[in-house]
Amino acid sequence: MTKPTVHNLERHIRTVPDYPHPGISFKDITPLIEDGPAMHEATDALARAVEHLEYDRVLSAEARGFVFGTALAYKVKKGLVLARKPNKLPRETISASYELEYGTDTLEAHADSIPPGTRILVADDLLATGGTARAMCELVENAGGTVAGVAFLIELGYLDGREKLAGYEVVSIINYDDPSE
Amino acid sequence: MTKPTVHNLERHIRTVPDYPHPGISFKDITPLIEDGPAMHEATDALARAVEHLEYDRVLSAEARGFVFGTALAYKVKKGLVLARKPNKLPRETISASYELEYGTDTLEAHADSIPPGTRILVADDLLATGGTARAMCELVENAGGTVAGVAFLIELGYLDGREKLAGYEVVSIINYDDPSE
Repeated sequence: MTKPTVHNLERHIRTVPDYPHPGISFKDITPLIEDGPAMHEATDALARAVEHLEYDRVLSAEARGFVFGTALAYKVKKGLVLARKPNKLPRETISASYELEYGTDTLEAHADSIPPGTRILVADDLLATGGTARAMCELVENAGGTVAGVAFLIELGYLDGREKLAGYEVVSIINYDDPSE
Repeated sequence: MTKPTVHNLERHIRTVPDYPHPGISFKDITPLIEDGPAMHEATDALARAVEHLEYDRVLSAEARGFVFGTALAYKVKKGLVLARKPNKLPRETISASYELEYGTDTLEAHADSIPPGTRILVADDLLATGGTARAMCELVENAGGTVAGVAFLIELGYLDGREKLAGYEVVSIINYDDPSE
């Protein structure tokens, strides 16, 4: 068993076995989000991990992704672009799709949220297989923006999500190398 | 036409007519969220508006509600409890339902997120008819917690959402009194 790499934040993360399917270990971050100091520490660690990157805005996907996306954006005083499920945004949108276990899903953002040339930091709470993050990168590039990097609170290293994000700088602050952790 | 009550934040809020239905003026806050300084100003104003209240945690509902819930929780260094749509949380939940135009919807939180006696500040981006906020208050009380207050970034005063929240202290920082605004 390999320990998560940094911080003592993992004591606020609860592993729920066999959720949502048998054999899957779900990382429940709600205890971390509910703890003010832990949430601060995690956000500050995420901000430090990306401080060498140059970006104009943060992009996060609904719903849980909005939590660390907002916290990071607030911390670094940059704007947050919302990537939403289809038909949630009221004005003209751009979109990118990604594969699920069965079928596909789509993320949308307002077309004017990522002006051409905007440098975007993609942020999410968890890197698993990388499909959602990859779709967010495509969303940025479809809009004419550039991906400054992709940041995660947690990385499930054993799922090799970084392979799907090859070519992008990927950072995470808590890494699980073993599915039994 | 009555102007919003405080701040100059409303210039970052875009009114989208006839969305999602004819006759409805939708308040699109994505331009505000995308603007780092404006987002900071809005969060700080919300924090000031609730600084007389005593609360242990903030409660917000997915998905857009997570944005200001997180920003406020981060600002005041308190934890955030997530109220989610059904079957999104991995452990034992409590729930509360509310009426929609057609049918009902339900919000869930982890049962251990609101220990008995916990003082909760309910926070959302928008007070319209008050159904979602009312359900969040019921969620708190079902868990044995108390509602310290209910805070909104925007209040559509002409929809009388405060009536549904009678008995709770309600604060908002941007008020629209006229549906044509």
